Amino acid sequence: MKGILVIADGLGGRPTDTNGKTCLEAAKTPVIDGLARRGAVGLLDPIGPGIRPGSDTAHLSILGYDPYEIYTGRGVFECLGVDMDVQVGDICFRANFATVEKKDGDLIVVDRRAGRIESGQRDLADALNAISVDVPGVSFEFRASTQHRGALLLRGERLSRHVGENDPHATGTPARPFEALEPGEAAERTAAVLNELTEKSFDALADHPVNVARADAGELPANYVLARGAADCPHIPSIESMYGVRGAVIAGGALYRGVALACGMTPIDVPGATGGLDTDLRAKADAAIRALGEYDYVFVHIKGTDNAGHDQDAEAKRGFIERIDAEFFAPLLERIDAAQTHMAFTGDHTTPIDFGDHTHEPVPVLFAGPNVVPDRVETFDEREAGRGGLGRFSGRVLPMVLGYNNWSPKFGS
Amino acid sequence: MKGILVIADGLGGRPTDTNGKTCLEAAKTPVIDGLARRGAVGLLDPIGPGIRPGSDTAHLSILGYDPYEIYTGRGVFECLGVDMDVQVGDICFRANFATVEKKDGDLIVVDRRAGRIESGQRDLADALNAISVDVPGVSFEFRASTQHRGALLLRGERLSRHVGENDPHATGTPARPFEALEPGEAAERTAAVLNELTEKSFDALADHPVNVARADAGELPANYVLARGAADCPHIPSIESMYGVRGAVIAGGALYRGVALACGMTPIDVPGATGGLDTDLRAKADAAIRALGEYDYVFVHIKGTDNAGHDQDAEAKRGFIERIDAEFFAPLLERIDAAQTHMAFTGDHTTPIDFGDHTHEPVPVLFAGPNVVPDRVETFDEREAGRGGLGRFSGRVLPMVLGYNNWSPKFGS
Repeated sequence: MKGILVIADGLGGRPTDTNGKTCLEAAKTPVIDGLARRGAVGLLDPIGPGIRPGSDTAHLSILGYDPYEIYTGRGVFECLGVDMDVQVGDICFRANFATVEKKDGDLIVVDRRAGRIESGQRDLADALNAISVDVPGVSFEFRASTQHRGALLLRGERLSRHVGENDPHATGTPARPFEALEPGEAAERTAAVLNELTEKSFDALADHPVNVARADAGELPANYVLARGAADCPHIPSIESMYGVRGAVIAGGALYRGVALACGMTPIDVPGATGGLDTDLRAKADAAIRALGEYDYVFVHIKGTDNAGHDQDAEAKRGFIERIDAEFFAPLLERIDAAQTHMAFTGDHTTPIDFGDHTHEPVPVLFAGPNVVPDRVETFDEREAGRGGLGRFSGRVLPMVLGYNNWSPKFGS
Repeated sequence: MKGILVIADGLGGRPTDTNGKTCLEAAKTPVIDGLARRGAVGLLDPIGPGIRPGSDTAHLSILGYDPYEIYTGRGVFECLGVDMDVQVGDICFRANFATVEKKDGDLIVVDRRAGRIESGQRDLADALNAISVDVPGVSFEFRASTQHRGALLLRGERLSRHVGENDPHATGTPARPFEALEPGEAAERTAAVLNELTEKSFDALADHPVNVARADAGELPANYVLARGAADCPHIPSIESMYGVRGAVIAGGALYRGVALACGMTPIDVPGATGGLDTDLRAKADAAIRALGEYDYVFVHIKGTDNAGHDQDAEAKRGFIERIDAEFFAPLLERIDAAQTHMAFTGDHTTPIDFGDHTHEPVPVLFAGPNVVPDRVETFDEREAGRGGLGRFSGRVLPMVLGYNNWSPKFGS
């Protein structure tokens, strides 16, 4: 038996998306509808009814964990997602290159994404990592990932994740100082390290050759670091330790890759899998098929649906869903042994077009495979999912895929 | 955007209510059915599947809180509901005027509701509040609400909510002594104060002019206080602190008003809103519309359905549901902007006629508004709700109304 979990980020929508229909309803998805016909559908509350999920907490819940118990922040998944060696006690952050302008001693944020810089980030990261901080016993590492994105890890004694962020989440306003969010030396000390480090980041980056070249080309300099999502390393028992099976993850975005790594999956990097709307879906399907030769199950994350939702672009979201149908599911289903595979497809939350951010509503979920009791629903969308044979439930989609494969541990005897 | 949550207390029923139909099924509700047609329905477990709710715990759960975490007893909501200034450390009770008869030194309960006394309660409360208790460092306040109902608050050091009650829940039997329900001085001390206070209540009330006049009129005297539902002040973060929006509550009953106050809503008192079957439903609809001019959302509580259920009067319950349709929803819907409003209608539990008390079954719930994915259900009742597009879920109805309005905080990132 083999298992496949496919999550299209932000898949769910609202009737306001496109003339009374959600993007998923409006999209032509003959292959996915075929899966619905032979399988069963239902409504998934990614975390719980009425709870508006983040992508990280939703993924933890869908993979079988209780985010209320283990989640401390996104930083740790960002660090794991760029293959940093996270150890117990480390404090992790999502970190961005940004563009700031010095004005009367303040660093005014001009662009929180440094003009979505496309090259030179590794050289800039080297310059950052050469900074020496004065707080004794603390070291750090910045690692660049795609575009302006990166991760920051602090290591040392007496550090705390209870610190704020320097990102003002607005432009034309100064970067904020990091603040301690709990009493005691550890949080004060952590905030001090971060303030020193980010202040020195401007000195290290402002006149860096990469930024000199960017200025010559009329591009915004990547001359500052914004950090947020402080987290420490949670204790997450691996899926292998609980179910005795080995899984692989195929995900373009560092956050999702990081969540899956925290759960013990092995990452498979796919050239062309960008974590965006331009991702190579056929390459991901190919990689999933190959992964199933070696692993018991594979988790495939597809990000573009959420990007289109955040961009409030209904046409892009509908079109991308149609591409998932034609370029991911069609080649995938041609090459799996349907009698020996259980598969689930869902989203990690809704990202309606009119709002452009995550909302609380349940998302449609679909299971197919020989052990799934089929229902009468023949198309896969928000409306039909409400009539599905699986009813409405919260989280734990991966444990269900593994369960259909008879791999679940028994609770009790 | 605006939000409306309407709870008809004890709305749900059983096929034994009236010839194979629940009262809600038997009632003609064209306006509510119209809402069902344009919205979506489902089944709500007020607290959780198979859990038989009280009204207070059910309301906490529906408003988005976990009653298992924060609920200690109804007393605090009764005290808040009559606008008492509840402080951390206070011990609160639901308290009734009752009629007792002295017999061989015992106080025999003749009527637990003092003949449902209709006037003079404030004078009797003054007499109670003039009692001095011998336990040092403890003060108290009794406040009368409607008919025999009232609330009692103890303030002082070393008090405990772990005490029993003096209400025997039967007549012809002596009032019970309050007992400490946990070891230690605090519970003993609290029970001692309560025993002293209720014993002295008979002395303070027996020959009170109000009771002399009642005796002359052939009415039962209100000559004793029964107290139950000991509770301390829970820490409840306000809805405004979590969602950033301001709400109003319209509720005739002190308990519901108190629960909403504990959650930070502003009470709007409506003349004619009695918390009974004789309530002025049009006045409540008017008040709700006015409240929406000033507040982001309004919670309207309608009590009569539950009263009819407790009275085991199917005709009264069916008729009252029809009045809710014609006298509350019809004028309300005429005056709201449906494109800018999300609304939910449900009950806080079932109160079937044959049992005359709350039962565990799920209750139908309905959502309508521009962001709700409509289902195919066209009438609102227990049977159709089981076929609804929202499936079955537990609690958190208000967070969903606020979520459809894009007001929810995100858990995770």
